[in-house]
Amino acid sequence: MKTGLDLVNECDNFPYYESDPEEYSRLRSTSWELHLEGGSGPYGYIKQSVVEKMPWDHDAWQIDDEKKCITPAPKRYTHTQETVIRETLEVAKTRDIFQILRGWRNELYPVHGPYSSRKPMVSMERAGSALFGINTYGVHMTAYVNTPQGMKIWVPRRARNKQTYGGMLDNTVAGGLSTGEKPFECVVREAAEEASFSEQLVRSNAKPCGTVSYFHIRDARAGGEAGLLQPECQYVFDMEIGAEVIPKPGDNEVEEFYLWTVDEVKRALAEGQFKPNCAAVLLDFFIRRGILTAENEKDYTEIVSRLHRKLPFPTS
Amino acid sequence: MKTGLDLVNECDNFPYYESDPEEYSRLRSTSWELHLEGGSGPYGYIKQSVVEKMPWDHDAWQIDDEKKCITPAPKRYTHTQETVIRETLEVAKTRDIFQILRGWRNELYPVHGPYSSRKPMVSMERAGSALFGINTYGVHMTAYVNTPQGMKIWVPRRARNKQTYGGMLDNTVAGGLSTGEKPFECVVREAAEEASFSEQLVRSNAKPCGTVSYFHIRDARAGGEAGLLQPECQYVFDMEIGAEVIPKPGDNEVEEFYLWTVDEVKRALAEGQFKPNCAAVLLDFFIRRGILTAENEKDYTEIVSRLHRKLPFPTS
Repeated sequence: MKTGLDLVNECDNFPYYESDPEEYSRLRSTSWELHLEGGSGPYGYIKQSVVEKMPWDHDAWQIDDEKKCITPAPKRYTHTQETVIRETLEVAKTRDIFQILRGWRNELYPVHGPYSSRKPMVSMERAGSALFGINTYGVHMTAYVNTPQGMKIWVPRRARNKQTYGGMLDNTVAGGLSTGEKPFECVVREAAEEASFSEQLVRSNAKPCGTVSYFHIRDARAGGEAGLLQPECQYVFDMEIGAEVIPKPGDNEVEEFYLWTVDEVKRALAEGQFKPNCAAVLLDFFIRRGILTAENEKDYTEIVSRLHRKLPFPTS
Repeated sequence: MKTGLDLVNECDNFPYYESDPEEYSRLRSTSWELHLEGGSGPYGYIKQSVVEKMPWDHDAWQIDDEKKCITPAPKRYTHTQETVIRETLEVAKTRDIFQILRGWRNELYPVHGPYSSRKPMVSMERAGSALFGINTYGVHMTAYVNTPQGMKIWVPRRARNKQTYGGMLDNTVAGGLSTGEKPFECVVREAAEEASFSEQLVRSNAKPCGTVSYFHIRDARAGGEAGLLQPECQYVFDMEIGAEVIPKPGDNEVEEFYLWTVDEVKRALAEGQFKPNCAAVLLDFFIRRGILTAENEKDYTEIVSRLHRKLPFPTS
């Protein structure tokens, strides 16, 4: 059985300098930094193994072997930094160099600049984000019902044939945040697509409650190459709904929804049935709602901090 | 006017290695590590200026100038590590070496061991905790009323003659957590002492909602020497109460309680009227309750992470 801290360790599994400088330095030494023109960077960590295989166009990228820095530096004036990144990823996809690019989405993820602006400096194809190790963003919503038997939570099981974490349990609604999309609008859209919740229901009942953030090293279950780096921030929402509202899979990503008591959810967590970042969001939900407390969870303070990691690059 | 991030920066003002390795290393190089026998440490950061002035008994302390490590190593078998720390602090107090020890409390703060046990390894006088730079713990509770005009929050003003942050605004109830005390019991006790809330009210209505943690470098307003290091974790509680419940100062720490709208609290925050860690707790309250959102607070993701810093030493 997994403890709360075990679940956090599966999700936030990149070492911290302050508590483990050796392991932190070892992992950093096996990755290069993504820099951008006009920024003070870094904006991503690229694994050595990715650097070796990526089809870099040496006219369009500045590759500093000594500092282990890679910067799009387009010489041809018609190319922007964003175009350079896109073309390189497209070549890699065409040549089938990286498994992860088989999941090409035609969806852009933003790379945010320094604190002053908070605007994206460039965007890149979602499937390439873990190759460049940039911060990524998403939304996760927990829908629950207050019943005479206590709180119950709507838990979906991911389709068995899904390439990433197939058959595992998920949060009621979850999805990635594309460039330009606002978290609340994203949760409204995803709630309709994944759970068939009406727009009106979500606009009235969904409440933003903060973020859960972590620095994840991907394993085989995530699909694609293992070991890729994924610092991630999830905007979290809670939504109380009535017993008469029943979520229905709106696309083929979800197999089935269960309405579970807190104890049933806790058991499935301990059994490792949840996708790791969904487990993290549920722990945060339980903590904010006084279900997990300093008195019943021995690693309480550690867990709360680890669920809200300061990400290594500028955030949105 | 201060932004939310300005307020966080005042509270969590020790640099992060990952975003500012130079400043982090500079500050670390001006402090020594507190180690303990039987632990893998460090358990605290002691400023160079404190190391130079502390009346170390060289029979009872092992002082490693090269590694900048200080460990209680009592040779006389009747002395425990805890006794060594206590006697040293008592000598320092008697000789009036440190201003901060003028606020001697006769109250013990725990130093927690590594993850496996989570039990305190030793305890030390509260007033000495910032000299040794250990993690400290407290409770903060926000009491609020849902009125026809929206949510209102009970805000106390600290007594003008209080030596620390005199005259500044505070959270409804707040206090330090002594060795052996549980967070919930502490909030019950402090709520009676500071706000005259009945035990029954607090036991029924106070809800644990996580922690707020930060690494603070003390300034003159905190009392005592400026520059002392204080990594701190506050267990946070929300308490909804009816309009008929009126907090009354139960000791001479509070001058007056105000019942303020969210906008009034936001204005006082922006004006810098709140004690820094109380501002941090209110930002967390606003985030958990959907008052501050990704859409209306530009530094949302950064603020959420910074309010939940992973502390540098093992936590309780």
